[in-house]
Amino acid sequence: MKKIAVLTSGGDAPGMNACLRAVIRGAIYHGVEAYGIKYGYNGLIEGDIYKMKSYSVSNIIQKGGTILKSARSTEFRTKEGRKKAYQQLQRRGIEGLVVIGGDGTFTGASVFHEEYGFPIVGAPGTIDNDLYGTDYTIGFDTAVNTALEAIDKIRDTANSHDRIFFIEVMGRDSGYIAIQSGIGGGAELIMVPETSTSIDDVIFDLNQGRNTEKTSSIVVVAEGDEEGGAMEVVNKVKSRLKGKDLKVSILGHMQRGGAPTAMDRIIGSRLGLAALEGLLGGKKNMMAGIINNRVVYTSFKECINTAKPLEQDLLRMVKILSI
Amino acid sequence: MKKIAVLTSGGDAPGMNACLRAVIRGAIYHGVEAYGIKYGYNGLIEGDIYKMKSYSVSNIIQKGGTILKSARSTEFRTKEGRKKAYQQLQRRGIEGLVVIGGDGTFTGASVFHEEYGFPIVGAPGTIDNDLYGTDYTIGFDTAVNTALEAIDKIRDTANSHDRIFFIEVMGRDSGYIAIQSGIGGGAELIMVPETSTSIDDVIFDLNQGRNTEKTSSIVVVAEGDEEGGAMEVVNKVKSRLKGKDLKVSILGHMQRGGAPTAMDRIIGSRLGLAALEGLLGGKKNMMAGIINNRVVYTSFKECINTAKPLEQDLLRMVKILSI
Amino acid sequence: MKKIAVLTSGGDAPGMNACLRAVIRGAIYHGVEAYGIKYGYNGLIEGDIYKMKSYSVSNIIQKGGTILKSARSTEFRTKEGRKKAYQQLQRRGIEGLVVIGGDGTFTGASVFHEEYGFPIVGAPGTIDNDLYGTDYTIGFDTAVNTALEAIDKIRDTANSHDRIFFIEVMGRDSGYIAIQSGIGGGAELIMVPETSTSIDDVIFDLNQGRNTEKTSSIVVVAEGDEEGGAMEVVNKVKSRLKGKDLKVSILGHMQRGGAPTAMDRIIGSRLGLAALEGLLGGKKNMMAGIINNRVVYTSFKECINTAKPLEQDLLRMVKILSI
Amino acid sequence: MKKIAVLTSGGDAPGMNACLRAVIRGAIYHGVEAYGIKYGYNGLIEGDIYKMKSYSVSNIIQKGGTILKSARSTEFRTKEGRKKAYQQLQRRGIEGLVVIGGDGTFTGASVFHEEYGFPIVGAPGTIDNDLYGTDYTIGFDTAVNTALEAIDKIRDTANSHDRIFFIEVMGRDSGYIAIQSGIGGGAELIMVPETSTSIDDVIFDLNQGRNTEKTSSIVVVAEGDEEGGAMEVVNKVKSRLKGKDLKVSILGHMQRGGAPTAMDRIIGSRLGLAALEGLLGGKKNMMAGIINNRVVYTSFKECINTAKPLEQDLLRMVKILSI
Repeated sequence: MKKIAVLTSGGDAPGMNACLRAVIRGAIYHGVEAYGIKYGYNGLIEGDIYKMKSYSVSNIIQKGGTILKSARSTEFRTKEGRKKAYQQLQRRGIEGLVVIGGDGTFTGASVFHEEYGFPIVGAPGTIDNDLYGTDYTIGFDTAVNTALEAIDKIRDTANSHDRIFFIEVMGRDSGYIAIQSGIGGGAELIMVPETSTSIDDVIFDLNQGRNTEKTSSIVVVAEGDEEGGAMEVVNKVKSRLKGKDLKVSILGHMQRGGAPTAMDRIIGSRLGLAALEGLLGGKKNMMAGIINNRVVYTSFKECINTAKPLEQDLLRMVKILSI
Repeated sequence: MKKIAVLTSGGDAPGMNACLRAVIRGAIYHGVEAYGIKYGYNGLIEGDIYKMKSYSVSNIIQKGGTILKSARSTEFRTKEGRKKAYQQLQRRGIEGLVVIGGDGTFTGASVFHEEYGFPIVGAPGTIDNDLYGTDYTIGFDTAVNTALEAIDKIRDTANSHDRIFFIEVMGRDSGYIAIQSGIGGGAELIMVPETSTSIDDVIFDLNQGRNTEKTSSIVVVAEGDEEGGAMEVVNKVKSRLKGKDLKVSILGHMQRGGAPTAMDRIIGSRLGLAALEGLLGGKKNMMAGIINNRVVYTSFKECINTAKPLEQDLLRMVKILSI
Repeated sequence: MKKIAVLTSGGDAPGMNACLRAVIRGAIYHGVEAYGIKYGYNGLIEGDIYKMKSYSVSNIIQKGGTILKSARSTEFRTKEGRKKAYQQLQRRGIEGLVVIGGDGTFTGASVFHEEYGFPIVGAPGTIDNDLYGTDYTIGFDTAVNTALEAIDKIRDTANSHDRIFFIEVMGRDSGYIAIQSGIGGGAELIMVPETSTSIDDVIFDLNQGRNTEKTSSIVVVAEGDEEGGAMEVVNKVKSRLKGKDLKVSILGHMQRGGAPTAMDRIIGSRLGLAALEGLLGGKKNMMAGIINNRVVYTSFKECINTAKPLEQDLLRMVKILSI
Repeated sequence: MKKIAVLTSGGDAPGMNACLRAVIRGAIYHGVEAYGIKYGYNGLIEGDIYKMKSYSVSNIIQKGGTILKSARSTEFRTKEGRKKAYQQLQRRGIEGLVVIGGDGTFTGASVFHEEYGFPIVGAPGTIDNDLYGTDYTIGFDTAVNTALEAIDKIRDTANSHDRIFFIEVMGRDSGYIAIQSGIGGGAELIMVPETSTSIDDVIFDLNQGRNTEKTSSIVVVAEGDEEGGAMEVVNKVKSRLKGKDLKVSILGHMQRGGAPTAMDRIIGSRLGLAALEGLLGGKKNMMAGIINNRVVYTSFKECINTAKPLEQDLLRMVKILSI
């Protein structure tokens, strides 16, 4: 391979820039020309593609977001769109592609590969950590720490007023952010999509207070919990928790941004380099991931179709630690 | 005076602990016994009062919230409640009181003073900075910086996706947090209760984009804006901003917590000491404030009844800086 | 005026970018062409000057350092150097200059103005806050908060091990950073160039411990204290504090960097705009400052030659608060 | 077992409190009485031991340092000292011990176990991450992120002035903090004890600048590098790097403190619970660690005597990423 390109797609995640930097500098190191594609698959279709050098990725490792910008592309879901994309690559002589993103990104890549046999390797960039094939996704650690810092702040005011706070964190299909930020924040209860917590349990836990000295409580709710988000949960419990001062806080989009943590910069760099070197070494239609601290490649199909289970010992720990 | 007491009341604010520490250590320095009252006026009525020493306030200057806890008291609004409060003070021989809080706290103190002639001096502790009689209230600078950090993070993702974000910050009656965090965050538009921004203006600004290179925008909305909070504003504008990707983020209670900034620790310390020394020096029924970097005492009445105007040159600056 | 230029000079300070942004956008707002000069007076001499537009200063308000880069220029101290500088300005038809920097920057500007009558207005950008003519310099608040966060962290380990830490903060001629970060950090003792603290006093305070419950202590030392930096102070006291575990930490250059606080972004913006509008309005040879929350212009001469006194009530407070 | 005790020893590390909390609450969960020992082995010898309840560890998970305090004990290295320690445990009917610390802590525990057969299980609490038997030690992730934030700030000023900074991070025998903070901080060069970097290499890298656009550089030096700390390295290279502006920054003790990251709170909790449950389940003379995301127990002997290698692929990455 003489020319490769890279894009970021789907929701942005802190560490994507570190990953991009590693792809570009890795390519230069191996004597390969590197191109950046803006706005994900949309930019690919429209030819928003430009050559990148080492200095193009200078001073970006500490930046949140993605300098290539990101988008969700409806056109790439059409045969016509993918054809244009392929032509753009051919016209420039680009022989391989690194895509940084999540589920949707890899689904698109997989279809594209089937149709055109074009070599693509992925790097997992999403704050949700819900991708099979890697222990950690790029952006997850930062999102957890951002949520945690917010929980710490909210606990100050919860303590000062003896309140119960229901804090909603991101995670439409996955409780990873909720579990980690909840344990880190000393939450009394954590509600996630993967397990069912009945409203009766919530009321029992909060009403009784096994530790009778506790006057304030934090409940962390993943936005995709089967009982609904934090607001819905409070609506369901408030009539049965009379006399308690219940508040809701929805952390929202700030969980996506911010300077990446050390871990996200490092795994971003490792996975960017792994995706690039995988691609150069002949891998295709696969995602580079880190499992047990080693780089592993898993087919896009498997990444997309396999559910990643929550760690059961963390769920067990919540009960013990809030005793 | 030989014995004084101190309480925190109303919404908690970062720097209240620094203020409390200065009251206690100031009292000890001047050879006066100091008592802490828990849960604001409620604790005063119920006699939740205990002696404090220098070490009682060790290692708290960096802590958000208030170690004395806070509450809003309905009982203190009754004659009966205030009578009990007075008896609790008399029983212990407490001769003066420092109250740390906002509007409501000083209204209560003012009535209490009228009825019993009891010496009270206040220190302004509220994140909203809406108190007449001081340039800055304790907690304001921290709340602004917390909001600003969230805005910075949200801008990362706004930039990566070319979105318009409406970010709601605290300020039911006051636009101080919105103005400062908005200017600091480079917002294109800031909506505050003190001035009216028409929906037409919002649409004009966002639709046109005076700076045509801008692809993402931040609008900061004070929760008490006359057009409603961020969610309501978006509902009003969305049909007329078709094709734009609008998002809402409500920062919520985390703005109240967190380790206080240097400024809040310092003005908390200064105002705690000023309130204490004012009280010992014979002042009563007054709030200690800082105006033009000097300590000034203003009567509770004036603090409560005078509106504090927004700085007009900051409002003017928003327009120029987002050109 | 139709064309103005702006440069940053001397040590960089967080908020310089906010200030630069306000100069550029203010110029555009007033219909004036704006040029940026790189590397301070060196770049002026060498003609490292380029036109700036609104987007040239997009997305920089949150960045530490200065995108124009800074330098200390020896050539500008020569007549020959200043002549070249003047020619560069003339050649481009630039009619006025905004300089962002400290003491040295304004000294240069003042000489240049004397020789060529060229209109220059300054904005005070230096972390040290040692400039007469303004209550706060751009960068000071950020530097104080950076030092404070480090002190908070060090206190954790001081407490865990019952140690005495001597922490050196920046301030070659000025104790502003030391005083504010020391009070904010709950320091037992603060040593600054403006007042003399004898080694005997240090030993008395630390040996005796007025508050006998205290097991750890923090001493904040300005680098320019008359007894020397933290290392020298420890060398002087250690033989007389046997049995105590003394440690030194020199915070160093990280105090210059980092995302600016809200305050530095706001006063940076205000002072940038004030310098620009002062220049356009006919002011020259002056620095824009903020005194008692109002913009004030003071002649460079006065700024350079007048000492700015430390606030005495803050020094008094240290003793009371560490009781 | 009916009664267990827990202590923290050696250098403090963020997350020790999370670990302690898990030991105490885990014990309560399993119906076992829990005692806290202050000041490490010194407190054990002197009987500074007190009963802990669930609320004793409330609101500490977010705190740096250790509420049990720590110390290095010379007395515990003597037979006599250990005898007293044993008697203190026997007198109270304490049947098992959890020790949180590093190398030295486990060496002491191992000797104690040999002499008295007393059941001890350890949890790895040290910022250095240099313990065999676990992928991560408690405190490491926080220390890396603290170093990284400082490097980010220093880069602002390095960039603004085109300087080369030599930044010294902690790590007397280990380059873990240097490697991770260096990669995360985009360092051009990282000097660690485990590998030898010749002064010639340093000069080659900095003089030549493979990437000719680079005007500033960061070199991260572990304090225990074979060429010495940052100051010594600069002294060795400065005569051969004429015309370059070299600066030194020694981050120092602040790397030990601060609120723990999410990761340190979670692995602190996991390892605290694992140590406690290991002890109750009959394990002794072992450290609980996390390898490949699973809890693993390794004998103290093995932990102490086996060197933990640096990850070679991270070292390789430094070269590629700074191209």
